[in-house]
Amino acid sequence: MLVMGIDPGLSRCGYGVVRQKGRVVEAMAAGIIRTDKREPIPRRLHEFQNELVELLDAYRPDAVAIEQVLFQVNVRTAMGVGQASGVAMAAAVGAGAEVFEYSPTQIKKAVTGWGGADKEQMGKMVQTLLGLPRPLRPADAADAVAAALCHLAHRPAASRIQAAM
Amino acid sequence: MLVMGIDPGLSRCGYGVVRQKGRVVEAMAAGIIRTDKREPIPRRLHEFQNELVELLDAYRPDAVAIEQVLFQVNVRTAMGVGQASGVAMAAAVGAGAEVFEYSPTQIKKAVTGWGGADKEQMGKMVQTLLGLPRPLRPADAADAVAAALCHLAHRPAASRIQAAM
Repeated sequence: MLVMGIDPGLSRCGYGVVRQKGRVVEAMAAGIIRTDKREPIPRRLHEFQNELVELLDAYRPDAVAIEQVLFQVNVRTAMGVGQASGVAMAAAVGAGAEVFEYSPTQIKKAVTGWGGADKEQMGKMVQTLLGLPRPLRPADAADAVAAALCHLAHRPAASRIQAAM
Repeated sequence: MLVMGIDPGLSRCGYGVVRQKGRVVEAMAAGIIRTDKREPIPRRLHEFQNELVELLDAYRPDAVAIEQVLFQVNVRTAMGVGQASGVAMAAAVGAGAEVFEYSPTQIKKAVTGWGGADKEQMGKMVQTLLGLPRPLRPADAADAVAAALCHLAHRPAASRIQAAM
């Protein structure tokens, strides 16, 4: 079971790929897709799409877990995040993955046991769960991995039983 | 000069293709892309992307004019429109078109001369400007054509001079 987590954003989009085999979960890749703020938004969305499609082609995840966009104070930023999440969802379906959305609170709760956890706690738990020597950097990559881990924790018991048979 | 106008939306997305040759503007196509509300959003975004890419391939517009997403009362709807507009922008750049965004007020002003024009006035003016026997239906298709006409009215004088030479 291969899951790609995505923390959507137009300036910085975190991604993380984890593999679960039996009870072992390991990190396969994590990083950031950036686009140039000086470019027009349509061009940035296209560039983001190209980079994401390349990653999806390279890893072929069974599922993609996307952090849900919440409306922040800055409406301009929220719109960019929404547009990027739309591009990411369409690309993930196009690559044959099942797509799931999780709220920031769901992700925090799944990873740390508490919906109000801060960035540092999240980073530490991602590190612990994956048995990494040090916290993942940058934080957006750790957030994306957390979304993937959240999906592994949430996917229906049925599919886990099937996978074990 | 071929321009595709897009009135983005996930449930119904209007599109309209117009061609300007000298002082004559004619409609080449107009319609709606619909996606099934019962399907999950990522699947609908992917389907929307596929249909739009087909239209872009068929008409190869020089420019795509997209109506800007404004935040409405219904945040859920605004997010769907934002996601669809992101997919549309990335697809248009991928098809080699230049992409431009216009606010609803800019579009109304360009087509009727007044930023507060209502749907009926807009429909009538689109009909008149294109010399159509009756108003375009549905209204989303007329709105998309209006976005394309707005682009023709706004594009820099320089490119119009160049086109005339």
